[in-house]
Amino acid sequence: METTSKTIYLDNAATTAMSDGALAAVTEAMREDWHNPSAMYTPSVEVTAKLNEARETLANITHAVDGEIYFTSGGTESNNTALFGARGRKGSRIIVGQGEHDSVFRAASELKSMGYDVRFAPIDTDGSVNIDEFKQLLSEDTSLVSVMHVSNETGAINDVARMVRLAKKLAPQAIFHSDGVQALGKIPVNLKALNVDMYSASAHKLHGPKGVGALYVKKGVSARPLLYGGGQEKGMRSGTESYPLARGFEVAAEEAARELAVNAERLNAYRLALKEELGRVNDIRVITPIENAAPGILTVAFDGIRGEVLLHSLEKFNILVGTGSACASHHESRFKRLFGLDEAHKEGVIRFSMSCENRIEEVEYVADCVRRCLASYKRSAQ
Amino acid sequence: METTSKTIYLDNAATTAMSDGALAAVTEAMREDWHNPSAMYTPSVEVTAKLNEARETLANITHAVDGEIYFTSGGTESNNTALFGARGRKGSRIIVGQGEHDSVFRAASELKSMGYDVRFAPIDTDGSVNIDEFKQLLSEDTSLVSVMHVSNETGAINDVARMVRLAKKLAPQAIFHSDGVQALGKIPVNLKALNVDMYSASAHKLHGPKGVGALYVKKGVSARPLLYGGGQEKGMRSGTESYPLARGFEVAAEEAARELAVNAERLNAYRLALKEELGRVNDIRVITPIENAAPGILTVAFDGIRGEVLLHSLEKFNILVGTGSACASHHESRFKRLFGLDEAHKEGVIRFSMSCENRIEEVEYVADCVRRCLASYKRSAQ
Repeated sequence: METTSKTIYLDNAATTAMSDGALAAVTEAMREDWHNPSAMYTPSVEVTAKLNEARETLANITHAVDGEIYFTSGGTESNNTALFGARGRKGSRIIVGQGEHDSVFRAASELKSMGYDVRFAPIDTDGSVNIDEFKQLLSEDTSLVSVMHVSNETGAINDVARMVRLAKKLAPQAIFHSDGVQALGKIPVNLKALNVDMYSASAHKLHGPKGVGALYVKKGVSARPLLYGGGQEKGMRSGTESYPLARGFEVAAEEAARELAVNAERLNAYRLALKEELGRVNDIRVITPIENAAPGILTVAFDGIRGEVLLHSLEKFNILVGTGSACASHHESRFKRLFGLDEAHKEGVIRFSMSCENRIEEVEYVADCVRRCLASYKRSAQ
Repeated sequence: METTSKTIYLDNAATTAMSDGALAAVTEAMREDWHNPSAMYTPSVEVTAKLNEARETLANITHAVDGEIYFTSGGTESNNTALFGARGRKGSRIIVGQGEHDSVFRAASELKSMGYDVRFAPIDTDGSVNIDEFKQLLSEDTSLVSVMHVSNETGAINDVARMVRLAKKLAPQAIFHSDGVQALGKIPVNLKALNVDMYSASAHKLHGPKGVGALYVKKGVSARPLLYGGGQEKGMRSGTESYPLARGFEVAAEEAARELAVNAERLNAYRLALKEELGRVNDIRVITPIENAAPGILTVAFDGIRGEVLLHSLEKFNILVGTGSACASHHESRFKRLFGLDEAHKEGVIRFSMSCENRIEEVEYVADCVRRCLASYKRSAQ
């Protein structure tokens, strides 16, 4: 078996390569549509109109008929704006999933230190929030709930619509936010059906540019901005709008929406094949709930090896994978204990995350390289 | 006189067209250097190294030898991070200039509503902070001072170094922040000499991309982040780093630094010529302190016309100008009363802001168009 010369990139949950369309769109807008949207002359009015078209495109894709989409600098800003902006009075309860992305989890921890009654809703070993335990936490004085749509660690899909229904009943004061960063472009997102009050998204997870995200806020939901200033984005997010980035987001989201069903089928086939191949010769634990997960993610735990070691071994075969929490600068182990793994597997978590650029033909090569890496590691460890 | 077919853009203080170099750099980095800097494999390590090179370039240009430069999503985020992140205990004094950009002014107003003793340091009619009155406001319990380096309204340069010296003496607890958004790339910025604790900058004001800025924080200065999450930028600014935008910032800042002296001379010549030409036939009040202002800005007040009306009239001649506060979505008049204008002039403020793309040959045409607009307006108003 020869090492492939082309890199096989399997860390698309961390970030994605830009699509040709999105890249061309950003470049063109940087060249042509650079006027400040807030100025009063015609070129600025035109950029504003285009910016609103981009907003409209995202609203159409996500069925955001009941609210407004605001552009932000990314998923982290969207999540922080939701948590800090929609928090209720000090001391009130705030419920977030135990498996949330750091931008929700750490914002919640900060809110805890500020005097909020922050509760972390337990997750099952597949990364999804346990609904029964979630239900127990809902209370009259809950001001904010934040549960991610798709887990970045495992791909697990939370039943957000059902959780919103429970929250509306048992915590009627609560604003319900969902982090959709790993959902948009991967699974259908229907904000009307989900009935969430706020929803976060990011462009660079779906082949768009880095540095732009979006926050949906339902009509009538009161949230404070995180950034004060010129009053852009109807006062919800000050700062000169970057139309080129919004345009790149628009194009990438359109492309992803158009290919959603086709890609879902392909990525799921890739995932199933990879799971089969990996399981055939290795002792693995599959963490991702295959039947209930975004199609592109397969998180597994290998026996007797640290994920980081396997990651670096695979890199020698031009295969790039993640160990989870890959978009965090630190590499802590908040999840290791949550996946319920035995001693042999608990350090060996690898997240394979695919995109439309991967090909089913790669699977056998990837699985074979994993096998070789493990064999070589175990020989050297003896 | 014929209308020029090429647009004469004189609103460079609101935003600038991207330079060819910066545009090419962003495009190349979007194509090549898209891996997540926080991942563990080699391409990510390489992007991180490049990101740090961009940081280093900005540090060299600004003589940021005593601290760290963090990338943000822009000037507004940098300013908000400084004000909210470096605020002291509730009730302590916070001093900001009366003429600060909205992203400082409104953040300070928010701090006031949160229980801080916020004082606005009066400005003179040229837009610069009055140092004597500033000095009066400094107190032992002052926790934060924020004074802009260059006024976006008038181009006036504040003597920040002197104000820092006063603050260190009379308000020894205070962290001193300066908004340098209109300074970087326009006048020499030496953070070591200024001795500020924090300093904000933005790329799109100097022919870089929109959506990226920087915040300098001096070693030993304690400031909290505004965005929590993955811990990027040493925990000071979470969120996946956009290396392509940072790279565009780097290239634009390098270009501006290289041409700083040449451009300053050219822009100042443009400004002086424009002032002369405008003053020759119109009754104007010059607000910009020509001898002590960033070279590219000329703010003047015209007699008997609203700035907005003149702006739209000039647009018919393909001349784009600002009315000040142009990068704000609202168009309020915080400054009108501050410039000390008489009744005839107080509504007629226009900000001409030039860049290296303007040519001295344009001046006569611009002045002539202004004259024609005013004459036509006054005829129709009679």
